[in-house]
Order: sequence, then structure tokens, then C-alpha cells
Amino acid sequence: MMIIMKANCPKEQIQHIVEEIEQIGLKAHLSQGEERTVIGVVGDIRSVNREHFLRQPGIERIVPISHPYKIASREFIPQNSLFPLDGVKIGDEGIVIIAGPCSVESREGLLEIAQAVREAGAHALRGGAYKPRTSPYAFQGLGEEGLEYLAEAREVTGLPVVTEVMAPEQVPLVARYADVLQIGARNMQNYSLLHAAGESQHPVLLKRGISATIEELLMAAEYILSHGNRKVVLCERGIRTFETTTRNTTDINAIPVLKSMTHLPVILDPSHSTGNWQYVSAVARAAVAAGADGLIIEVHPNPEQALSDGAQSLTPKHFVEMVMQVKAIAEAVGRSLAPSKALASNVS
Amino acid sequence: MMIIMKANCPKEQIQHIVEEIEQIGLKAHLSQGEERTVIGVVGDIRSVNREHFLRQPGIERIVPISHPYKIASREFIPQNSLFPLDGVKIGDEGIVIIAGPCSVESREGLLEIAQAVREAGAHALRGGAYKPRTSPYAFQGLGEEGLEYLAEAREVTGLPVVTEVMAPEQVPLVARYADVLQIGARNMQNYSLLHAAGESQHPVLLKRGISATIEELLMAAEYILSHGNRKVVLCERGIRTFETTTRNTTDINAIPVLKSMTHLPVILDPSHSTGNWQYVSAVARAAVAAGADGLIIEVHPNPEQALSDGAQSLTPKHFVEMVMQVKAIAEAVGRSLAPSKALASNVS
Amino acid sequence: MMIIMKANCPKEQIQHIVEEIEQIGLKAHLSQGEERTVIGVVGDIRSVNREHFLRQPGIERIVPISHPYKIASREFIPQNSLFPLDGVKIGDEGIVIIAGPCSVESREGLLEIAQAVREAGAHALRGGAYKPRTSPYAFQGLGEEGLEYLAEAREVTGLPVVTEVMAPEQVPLVARYADVLQIGARNMQNYSLLHAAGESQHPVLLKRGISATIEELLMAAEYILSHGNRKVVLCERGIRTFETTTRNTTDINAIPVLKSMTHLPVILDPSHSTGNWQYVSAVARAAVAAGADGLIIEVHPNPEQALSDGAQSLTPKHFVEMVMQVKAIAEAVGRSLAPSKALASNVS
Amino acid sequence: MMIIMKANCPKEQIQHIVEEIEQIGLKAHLSQGEERTVIGVVGDIRSVNREHFLRQPGIERIVPISHPYKIASREFIPQNSLFPLDGVKIGDEGIVIIAGPCSVESREGLLEIAQAVREAGAHALRGGAYKPRTSPYAFQGLGEEGLEYLAEAREVTGLPVVTEVMAPEQVPLVARYADVLQIGARNMQNYSLLHAAGESQHPVLLKRGISATIEELLMAAEYILSHGNRKVVLCERGIRTFETTTRNTTDINAIPVLKSMTHLPVILDPSHSTGNWQYVSAVARAAVAAGADGLIIEVHPNPEQALSDGAQSLTPKHFVEMVMQVKAIAEAVGRSLAPSKALASNVS
Repeated sequence: MMIIMKANCPKEQIQHIVEEIEQIGLKAHLSQGEERTVIGVVGDIRSVNREHFLRQPGIERIVPISHPYKIASREFIPQNSLFPLDGVKIGDEGIVIIAGPCSVESREGLLEIAQAVREAGAHALRGGAYKPRTSPYAFQGLGEEGLEYLAEAREVTGLPVVTEVMAPEQVPLVARYADVLQIGARNMQNYSLLHAAGESQHPVLLKRGISATIEELLMAAEYILSHGNRKVVLCERGIRTFETTTRNTTDINAIPVLKSMTHLPVILDPSHSTGNWQYVSAVARAAVAAGADGLIIEVHPNPEQALSDGAQSLTPKHFVEMVMQVKAIAEAVGRSLAPSKALASNVS
Repeated sequence: MMIIMKANCPKEQIQHIVEEIEQIGLKAHLSQGEERTVIGVVGDIRSVNREHFLRQPGIERIVPISHPYKIASREFIPQNSLFPLDGVKIGDEGIVIIAGPCSVESREGLLEIAQAVREAGAHALRGGAYKPRTSPYAFQGLGEEGLEYLAEAREVTGLPVVTEVMAPEQVPLVARYADVLQIGARNMQNYSLLHAAGESQHPVLLKRGISATIEELLMAAEYILSHGNRKVVLCERGIRTFETTTRNTTDINAIPVLKSMTHLPVILDPSHSTGNWQYVSAVARAAVAAGADGLIIEVHPNPEQALSDGAQSLTPKHFVEMVMQVKAIAEAVGRSLAPSKALASNVS
Repeated sequence: MMIIMKANCPKEQIQHIVEEIEQIGLKAHLSQGEERTVIGVVGDIRSVNREHFLRQPGIERIVPISHPYKIASREFIPQNSLFPLDGVKIGDEGIVIIAGPCSVESREGLLEIAQAVREAGAHALRGGAYKPRTSPYAFQGLGEEGLEYLAEAREVTGLPVVTEVMAPEQVPLVARYADVLQIGARNMQNYSLLHAAGESQHPVLLKRGISATIEELLMAAEYILSHGNRKVVLCERGIRTFETTTRNTTDINAIPVLKSMTHLPVILDPSHSTGNWQYVSAVARAAVAAGADGLIIEVHPNPEQALSDGAQSLTPKHFVEMVMQVKAIAEAVGRSLAPSKALASNVS
Repeated sequence: MMIIMKANCPKEQIQHIVEEIEQIGLKAHLSQGEERTVIGVVGDIRSVNREHFLRQPGIERIVPISHPYKIASREFIPQNSLFPLDGVKIGDEGIVIIAGPCSVESREGLLEIAQAVREAGAHALRGGAYKPRTSPYAFQGLGEEGLEYLAEAREVTGLPVVTEVMAPEQVPLVARYADVLQIGARNMQNYSLLHAAGESQHPVLLKRGISATIEELLMAAEYILSHGNRKVVLCERGIRTFETTTRNTTDINAIPVLKSMTHLPVILDPSHSTGNWQYVSAVARAAVAAGADGLIIEVHPNPEQALSDGAQSLTPKHFVEMVMQVKAIAEAVGRSLAPSKALASNVS
């Protein structure tokens, strides 16, 4: 339910409505527009006496929300949410590219890739310190040591860091090192983790589960948003189907569908959604053509020696080509690449 | 198995090899390159005495083909196949757009749409006279009457006609009226129909089955190709998954995967692959960005009154916008729209 | 829409209603119960003047049907349809087992298997003369020669024959040799074939498409039923999912779902639904436990030498064991195996 | 890799081999048979000098394991693992039935259901105190209060308690109240939780993820087993497919497949795998017919008033009928229901 306040109604009237909402055990989310304020009401709406509210001063009208997700919906917040990331803004007109290795393997290797992706125009560095692996006997990541290397790579390159968090009790530690907490596909419905990420108020990159519906993805985002943490970016990373020539099936429909259903920024991970580096550039172009706000890409200098996901990693050389292609597509849809550190430093 | 002949080897040597192949009950498919000829050998290869062939004059080497599809594979025919369609060529550098109503409903309606899509830049007219419908009680198409309207629309607009054929015994009739025989998703593994279409030597647009793998699509094409009919264009039209916000899931990965596996032209049908007109333009842009050679689009002047598929049909106005957007994307990937009749007539 | 006539209303009144229905362009399907007759009305119901009909003599009430399938629904025909098959009845209390090779490979081989499955208690012989194969280069069946061998096997063993028909023009030929026309999964939405099978008035075994919904299966059956051919048995044969340890996923839910939605008999094909002979007996038991009316099973004396589907064929020895297990399950759910020829001949 | 020791080889030789294995950084898992001991070796096997080991006294032969899961495989432990549960043993000849409400809603309601399912023959009580819900606004369970009610219900009925744990830090608390820790489908790849459950050494019921492959389920079990916790029971609960008449698709194939791949007990949850109480009994019968070792069933006295999953809950009356039907099937496959508390108390 949304309460649309009258244009330029005084602050005290808004405050009064908020208090009324909280008195009956519900939550109020304020959304300040240029002219008017909208108050989102979340909770068991059946207890609301609609007539009572309509008699309060300052209220123009009351609008129901038809989706099970509320704060995530475009009905609730019509304008695009912008997700600030160290200078650039995800969700804004500029396309944002996050790149780096699947997992952090060594200090030197990470620094090398970080500098390569920065030079190619990436806006942020990705890399896993904690790795969710199907087998308990596979490489599980370097842990806190990996986080330290990521922090050092940020120091050196100026790129903000995106890295995965796998358990609620890891949230404070990872948040200390990372600019964005990534919640992986396997944990999309790990509600304890979603709560902890919401409470942290730290930016979150939320990946769609391998067989999650789009509505379930928005409901997972709602868990984070319901803690007042609005800094959430959604990531399509391929779904599981019967097709076997690719690791997953990129649900390209999800890009325009999500952009119409939610105000949150939407990016695509073509490395996982194809599972094969040969198809990454084509699907990256498709994503931006379809309206994605950004990309997250796996890059490795020697893919065949990577400890994980080598088959789907681009070399730095191919990554440079991909960035150029994506730039052309961005311009064809009336957008551009977000200003990059590489350009900034070249200019100075 | 492919036999690579020596550069500039004399015709008689090639002819001799072909005869040897046919003598042991196999088929030979010639592929003439600029410098050299490649002979594809199809059938039960186990009976071939490889040593014997290598001793024949003119043979450079013999290469096995690792896929169950042979003539459809890029190994067999490395260069893109071009699919001629009344002036334009599908599979060439220029993007080809096929547009029209889901089903032919009336003479006047069809002529109106045909002219609208021609003006907007479409290269061919689609429209179903025979409609495969899930329910026996639903509108099943106008039949031969619909074919006549299509022929008249071609007369008036100059647009070649693409229309569906549903049974082997319909092939001669439909081929008399249509420029391209469409084989629908439900019939992708209707082998009697594939045989009849192959034998007809008429151009064929083959749609991927709703849960066919990419390899099965290529095997279905192989049924047509094995009759010597090389004029086949493949069409991705969405696959069935668990996602419910869209009618199907567009398998955008299939575009670069098919382009790497086969020399046949590949187009996408975003009307069926999304099932919702609001997402058609975004997915059309994505398809061309990913490397598709064309699009097939449902257009209807009054979608809400269409007898079938109204929800996924663009109005002529939205179709014009889509064509403009696709043109920009085509140029961003170094291609263009194929020259259209509209432009031709405007110029004259 | 169903018109429920009054108990014991005279024939002329029923006839009058049927004429009224046909006068407005609709079809009437009579369903004669012990006490009363129900007239199913199929077509565009919106044109029916309900009040007018309620005033006619003999009508008790009019009931709408909420499903897109009509004649196939339990609402339309509440009691189980029985599907007669040379002495036994599919859909009755007794479980019916159809068994034989995937494809007819030779006269001797077929006779050997036919006698083996008869001795083990099978009620009908399966075997493909026309084989839908993914590859045009694979064994496509013996054609009419295979049909002749099947007819001879019926002569010798007394088992009725079930065999696949792949194209509308094959229907008369196959119907001349076979007791039941099988329509395979790939052709479940081959509407020309469904029409031809419906018109033939020959018994039909209709297999669910590899990714057809249960409702689509019922709609496909409706195509046959709408020609007045009520001798249709439905067959679950596994659906395509992401799971790879088995060829398909047996949708065991489909058994009770279909039994509640339709009056038609329902059988299961565990050979295709698992793709692995080791799991066939377990899934056959499950099917009967869940309420299936029968089974169709692939049996081959030397599975490793079969020209198709060897991996999923039972040896005659394993088939005997399966029949014994299924018998025990049938009794545990208050049913039994249908009386078999083997028992009949043993007794005499 | 498995080291098969000679029959009746002395303990010191076994101990020596274990030490050798640990010296090179690998783990040894002992499996004591009646005659001989098998030592499973887990870790990076490539570092093992096979010749060196074969020269040690007491070793008969060394067998590689071909699956990515090791301790979970039947190769590793050929005999069925028995999972003790307060008197009965899951995985043994007797079928075990776990029943109760989806979520614990009130003290009185829980006691009522607990007594009803005990009287009907259930062997354990299920009920969620912590509920993973798609929406943050839905009822999330009573938490520790719910655990207390479960403990009281165990006190009163003697039924052991199975309840879900959702986060690693909840494990000690839930383990204090529950006899079996349930890990839900959404958390099947929550590796932090799997580690915590493994370390707890508490019995674990592990549900298959909604789109997890069978191999991924076994890999998830391996995470628990690799901590030396062998008390794991696997649960098929339906997978996500395109079919919409049921909430999920019961993968009945998974029962015989799992029984052949692993020694762990396997049960089925027909309440979730169908999502509709009308189909629960049929699928419960199918599961036992296919070889399942048990069932977990949702029961609620007033399903239409349940706070969650009412549509798929059996009433106590229908549950009694289901138990009788399952008993008949168990006997038809040469098994029986495990001895129940109800029978025990009726006897005394």
C-alpha cells in the first residue's frame, strides 16, 4: 500500500502519518520526490482502516500494491535507484563493468589482473576469497588472506572491490574489506544471510538463483530492502535448463522484465550464464542492447591454469575487445560506458 | 567425413572420387571453394577404406566430422550459407526482418499490415494460413483462402511471403503460394514433414522446438539438407523453462552457439520468445547484438482484437520504432539492415 | 457445457435436444449412463441461449465445463473409459502390460521376443516398424516389412499389436496391420496426424510430448476425441528436465493428476522415462502403485545388440521378474493383472 | 580411492596404513565389514604412490573411485547405512514415516497433531520452528518457542523430532531440542550450514534443492560426511519443471538411482513434491514401491486454516488411510512398516 501525499505538504503532516502507521505495527518507507512524498506501508495491510487515513490532513490518495514484493517494485518507487560505487553510479545512464578473476589465487596474480582490467576500462574489481564449491574437496578460496589481497589491489588501482560473502557471521569481516557484498546464486534464498546483509547497510550485489523465478529474485531483494538497505543491484547469471551446449541459459528476457518491474539496477554475468569464453562477448553485447545497467565478467591471464572457471574466463586481450564492443552497443541505445579510472588517469 | 581435394585439382579427379563414394552406398556433397573443393561423405562411414581413398589422385587429406549432424556443420561448410529471398540474402551482412500478423484473418487486414510493415522497412511478410493450435476448438486458420490473400499481398507490396506448412501432403500447395515454407516448433521433429520439405527444394524456415536442444535443431535441419536442399534458415523462438513472467525463455546463447556450429543463417523470433509486446524490441536488439542474421516479428494494427497471439504483437507504430533501434544495433556490430523495398520505392 | 437429462427421459426428447444443438452449429456428444443421459456440447458456447434450452422437456440442468479440453474431461464423462484390446480392457480393474522390442529388426527376432513376453504374461506386443530418429542417418525402421512381421507375430502368439504411425498418409496402412496406433512423443502436437488418427476410428495410444504439459496432452487427446473416436489411451513417458543421471524424468505425479482430470486410461512407459533398464522395474512398480492402468515396456533378448534403445531394454528374464513384482503391487492397491494369454493357454 | 585390506588382517596393519595416509596430508575413513576392513582415502589422490602402498603388509588391493562424491558412494561403503532414530532405524528393512505440521503454530495445535500422527503409526514428528519463506512479510515461524513445543510434544508422545535449521549459528540451539536437523531445499548448497551440521555430529535430514541434480545432492551430503558425521538421510522433495498442475515434479527415478549410487537412506516428501493433498497418497505409495526407505508427510487438522502449506497437508483421517495403503505396498515389495509407538502402546 502506498500513501501519496499532497504536493508540498508540510513535514509535520508526513511525520504524523508515519507515526500512525507505526502505531498499528506496520513499517513506513519514505520516498521523497521533487514535488511530493510517497509513504510506502509494509506489513499486514488488512489491519489498516483506509477511511481513517483518508481523513488525515496532507493525504491525496491511497494506492494498493499488487505484487508480493513491495519496496523492490516500480509501483513503490517509480524512478531508477542509483547504486553509488566509488565515483560511478550503477543504475545511471553509464554502463558499469565489474571484472576480475573467479577466485583470488595469489597476490601477484590478482594485482596483474586488476591492473589489466583497469586499463581496459573496468569500473570495479571482482574476485572470490570465499568460494562456494560443489565439492568439499575442491579449492575453497584463500579466505581472509584473499580479502587482504583485494584491499591491496584497490589501493593500487583505485578500483572498488566486489566479493562474495557466504554466511551471516562473515558479513562484518567481508564488509570491512569489500565495497560491495556479493550474494551468490546458491545463497539467493539463504534468508539468514539476506537479513545480515540487509542489516549491514553495505551495498549488495544479489545474484539470481540457478532456478529462481524473477519474482523470487525480487522477493530475495525485498529481504535486504526491508532492513532499510536500498543499495541493492540485481544480477542475472543464467538459469538451469535442458540445454547442454552451454553451462546455463542466459535469460535475456529477464533484463527488460526486471527493468519494468523494479527500480533496482540490473546487471548480467555472461561468464556464468554461458560458461564458455567464446560466447561471453556476444552475450555481453546482447545484455546492454536489452537494457542492462552493467556487466560482471571473469578475466584471467592464463585461463587454462585457473583454479576455477577457466573455461569461461576472458584473457585481458579479449576483455579489451569486449569493452570496445559494449561501448558501441551502449551508444547505439543512447547510453555510454560510465567514466573509467583508466580514462581519468590517462587524462591527468 | 570430409575429403579435402588438392588446390586446383582437375574436375575428373573430383568426379572419380564422387563415383567411388557412391559405389559403396554413401552420398557425396560437393562444396566448391575458391581454390579447392571439399567432398562431404555422408552415410555409414565405417565401411570406408580410408587408405584406399588416400591413394587416389587429387586428394590432399581426409578429415573426420565429430558431430552427428554433418552437412549442417561448420566443419563441413566453413563459409556462411546465404539464403536468397527475393533480392535480399539471409545470412549475408545485411539484417533481414520478416514481419506480419500471427494468422491471416481477412484480405483487407492482411493488405493493411503488409503495407505497414513494408513502409517500416520489413523485407518479407509473415502470416499463418494453417495454424497449429493447442485446442481443436480454436481458430485453425483460413487455409488455402489465406494463401491466396498472402499471394495478393506479395503482388501489391513486392514482399516475399513466409508461411507455415503443417503436413507433408500440404507441401506442394503451400510451396505454390509461398516463397519460404515455415516449419513450426511443434513440428521440428515431424520427420515426414522434414523429408517432404527437403524434397521440395523450396526454401525452409525451421523453428526450434519448444524443448529441443541446439543439437536436435541441427539434426532436424540435417533431415532437410540430406535431400540436397541447402536453403534452410534456423529460428530460435524461445524454450520452455520454469520462468512464468514470460511465455518462453529466449535462449540468447543459442545465437553465438549456432553461428559457431553451423554455416546456416540464424534468426530470432522475439514475439514468441517473450510472448509480450513490451519486451519484443529489447530482445530484438539483443538478438542482433549477439549476431543474429534476422528477425521475425508479429505485427497487428489492433493487437487486442487479434484472433491469436494479440498480447505479443507490435502495433505498426511500435514496429517502426523497433526497426530504427535494430538498425542502430546492426551498425554498432559492423552490419546494417538489408536494403528494403520501402527505401527502394522512396528513392525512385 | 453439459446438458444433464432427467432420469429415464424418453429418447425423442434427447434426440430433439441433439437437433437443436446441431442447428446452431455446435456438436453434441452423448454419454449414456445407467439412469440418465448427459449431452456434451462442444463448440463456441457463447452463442447458446441457455434459457431457451432450460425450457425444453427432459432437461434437468446445464453445467459449464471449466477446462479447455471437453470430451477428455472427467466432468464430461465421470466414469472410467474402457479401452478394449482383444479380450482385455485397458482402463478396467486389470493392469495391462504391453511389451516388445523398440524397433522390429528381423522376423525371427520379433517372433522370439513376442513369445517370450507372452509367456511372461504380457497382454499386447509393441514394436516399431516406422521409427522417428533424431538423425537422418540412423536406422529408420523396416517400414511395411516390419508391419508384416508384427501381423505374423500376432498370428502366432495371439497378442494384439501396438505400433507407431508417423504421418497422416500412413494411417490407413498401419491401421490395416495394427490393433492400436501409437502416436509418439515427437508427434503429440502433429495436428494433421491427430486428425487422421481421430477419423480412422482406430484405437490410439497417445504419448505425452517430451515437454508437453498435462493440459496440452489432454488437448491433443481432444483432437482425436473430437472426431468421435473415444478409444484413446494416454501414456506418460518421461519429461525433459535438467537431471542427467536418467534419460528423462518420470513425472509420476501425472498418474494421479490425469486419473482425476480425465476418464481416459493412463499407462506409463518406464523404459523411456528412465532410459536405463536398471531402473525400469522400480518405476513400473511405482506407476501401478500410483494408479496407472498399464505399462509399456521395451524387451530385447540381447539388449547390447539392439539397433535402438538397447540401454533401456529388459531381457526376457528381467521382464518376467518385473511382471511378478507388478502383480504384487497391483494386488496391494486392490487390483490385479488383466487375464493373460499365457495363463489362458497354460490352463487349457 | 579405497584400500581393501586382507580378510582378518591384524589391527596394527590397519593402523599403520591409516598413519601413512595421514602423513601425506590425506584423510582415512574406516569401514569395518564382517570379514575385512576397507579404508577410504579422501583428498588429492594424485600425490599417492600406489606402488608404495601395495607393498605394505595387509593390503589386498587398491580401487579407484570414479565419482566426485566419495564417502557417500556405494563403491566406498557397499552395505546400506542405517540411520538410528529413537528405536527405529531409517535405512533398514522397515519403512519409517515422519509426519506433522508444516510449521509449529501453537502449543495445543502441535500436541493435537502429534498425538494424531502417533496413533496413525508415524515414527517421528516433523514441524518447523524456523521457516524459510519466500516473502519477508510472511509468517517466519515461532523460533525457540516452537522448539520448546516440539520438545514437549516428544515428551508426551515419545516421537523423536525432526525440525529445520537455517543458519550455522542456529545449529547448537536446534540440536539441543531436535533429534534430527533438517536442512531444507533452499539451503542444500549453503556450505557454511552443511559444515556446521557435519561438525555437530547430529543426525541430518538433507533435502534435495529444487533444481539440484542427484550428483549435487550427493556432493552436498559429502560436505556433512567429510566431517565424520555419517548420520545423513537424503530426501527427494520434487524438482522444478515446466509442469504447472502440480507445485513440483516428483522425481521418482531419483529413488532407484540414489539407492544404487549411495548407501545412505533415501526418503520422499510427497507433500512438497506434489503440493496438493489429493495426490499425496498416490505418490507416497509410488515412493515405497520404488524402494524409498521412508516418507515425510505434512498433516494438519484444519488444512484450510494452516499458516503455511495448507493445500498440501493431509487431515489426520486421510493420513491414517495413507499409512494403511503404504503398509500394503511395503509388504508387496518384501518390506514392512517399522514398528510404531502406537502399536507398542496398544500392546501394553
